[in-house]
Amino acid sequence: MVNNTIAIDAMGGDNSPKSVIAGLAISSVRNPGVEYIVYGDEKKLAPLLKNRVNLKKIVKVVHVEDWIRANEKASKSLRRAKTTSMGMAIEAVANGEAGAIVSAGNSGALLAMSIFGLRKLSGISRPALAAVMPTISGEIVALDLGANIDCSSQNLFDFSIMGVVFAKNVLGKPNPRLAFLNVGEEENKGNTIVQEAASLMQNSHFSNYYAGYVEGDKIISGDFDIVICDGFSGNIMLKTAEGTAKLCYAYLKKIFSSSVLGKISFAIGRSCFLGLRKKMDPRKHNGAVLLGLNGIVVKSHGGADSIGFAHAVDLATDMSKRNYNELIKKELNRINIS
Amino acid sequence: MVNNTIAIDAMGGDNSPKSVIAGLAISSVRNPGVEYIVYGDEKKLAPLLKNRVNLKKIVKVVHVEDWIRANEKASKSLRRAKTTSMGMAIEAVANGEAGAIVSAGNSGALLAMSIFGLRKLSGISRPALAAVMPTISGEIVALDLGANIDCSSQNLFDFSIMGVVFAKNVLGKPNPRLAFLNVGEEENKGNTIVQEAASLMQNSHFSNYYAGYVEGDKIISGDFDIVICDGFSGNIMLKTAEGTAKLCYAYLKKIFSSSVLGKISFAIGRSCFLGLRKKMDPRKHNGAVLLGLNGIVVKSHGGADSIGFAHAVDLATDMSKRNYNELIKKELNRINIS
Repeated sequence: MVNNTIAIDAMGGDNSPKSVIAGLAISSVRNPGVEYIVYGDEKKLAPLLKNRVNLKKIVKVVHVEDWIRANEKASKSLRRAKTTSMGMAIEAVANGEAGAIVSAGNSGALLAMSIFGLRKLSGISRPALAAVMPTISGEIVALDLGANIDCSSQNLFDFSIMGVVFAKNVLGKPNPRLAFLNVGEEENKGNTIVQEAASLMQNSHFSNYYAGYVEGDKIISGDFDIVICDGFSGNIMLKTAEGTAKLCYAYLKKIFSSSVLGKISFAIGRSCFLGLRKKMDPRKHNGAVLLGLNGIVVKSHGGADSIGFAHAVDLATDMSKRNYNELIKKELNRINIS
Repeated sequence: MVNNTIAIDAMGGDNSPKSVIAGLAISSVRNPGVEYIVYGDEKKLAPLLKNRVNLKKIVKVVHVEDWIRANEKASKSLRRAKTTSMGMAIEAVANGEAGAIVSAGNSGALLAMSIFGLRKLSGISRPALAAVMPTISGEIVALDLGANIDCSSQNLFDFSIMGVVFAKNVLGKPNPRLAFLNVGEEENKGNTIVQEAASLMQNSHFSNYYAGYVEGDKIISGDFDIVICDGFSGNIMLKTAEGTAKLCYAYLKKIFSSSVLGKISFAIGRSCFLGLRKKMDPRKHNGAVLLGLNGIVVKSHGGADSIGFAHAVDLATDMSKRNYNELIKKELNRINIS
């Protein structure tokens, strides 16, 4: 079944293809029944796959020597859609051979090639990058995180539809609460684009999910399941959160290693410190998904290790199995009918 | 001397005037020789000042019964500039009675009344809210944080001048490194406004300080001393950082209180945990300063306690004593000459 087949760009990212194959080994245990078409250099892949007996049966390698470089311009990469690991993995989704594609490669190129190769879903003005972020009581899905620097109110409204379907089906929230990222909670705050998007939302059949504006410090409150924003402020939000978490952890390390009592406390509370580290581990939330195309595209962090890459593959698998795009189409049809 | 006199709006903020007076008591010890003109309801202020012998000599109360409410519209507040504690405190700076004003009241009203009462510095297109944020190795000044939702490249360039003067004189960095907040580090990233501002900076006599673009996760890296952005993304950045720090602390508390080993570890490492809390204490960075007016305006967080308010007063005192605005004027003159 196509939905149980994931196309993998094995050559993108800093640690490829090693962390890619190791990541597949981890994800495949969590997702039995899933198969992978892996695009990359056979000479490099063969030794990595050699001793992974479990992968042998479920991995099909498609040999391709060329790959998109990390700093390559998106416009240049488009010309190599047929001859690169990234381009061919996207093509597998376009052809119906796979339900989703995962790549840790060049974001701009992945975005451009995916839009070109998979085309936008009919009724969606622009695709958007979405990711799941932790909150005090659970998780929140945020979009757009950088695919669209400038957005219209219609773009933000389209992101809202995709966000609601994601929260319902991937996060498992039957009645998700959606907020627009803004600089205040009052109705007159922010720019006209955000205000118009809020109004579109309030006047749609999705109005029940609308929960107002959210400020940067309340994203983690647990009061919301979806946060909608343009790609510029979304990217700032996501990355500031990452940076601040790193800062907190750096403070923690410094303080506990700089005194004898700190070291004893650390030794005794080791499991707690490890638990904290695990809880704050950004790898658990690795995988930004490009929503709004005829196919599921998951971007893994370029620096992801095997654990991070496995989470990105988990996300792609989950969305493919749940037929996420069919659910989006249903919601878009409801809008056209109403 | 005017520079040693600070005007205080005693009625703004959630905990006023109690935390305001207690905050002055704290700040006055750290800043000997400074005097305060306190605007507020004498009936409420008298009992708070009664037992504070040290404050008696340096505090002059100006009785005013009216104050700007927390959710009042800025346009409405402007009409009450002459009759409210906030308006009269700003007036004291405009009159030359005080070098700076501190308020924990309504941000929008403070912004509007300050611009109206103090007027923009000649040569500055728009005033901006700035604040100091922690990094791994020190501090960074960020602006704008919400005074201007939309900004032109000229606005961002003006913020850069004010930021450089701040970093040099308030943060004490002789050769500050300035970056524009963006969604990538490459030259072609972001919108045209950011790109044009970067170009203005590179072609100015401030080009030595220009250090490129910074992404949200690198603000804390310690590689930069100034981060410049429009008020929308700046506000998102600042508040996301606050929220994430809270999330980290909440995780820490939860994990260490949920097991016996965690509790023992906490008991032994108590001083470390307290040290961490202190390090992450947002009160230490309370006080956003409105730059670019003929007078120094410091906005304390509305929910600040006495410790937080004291930090805001410290900042106002420091900037007033250093004659921050005269230094800005000098830099603006250099631009006009060059």
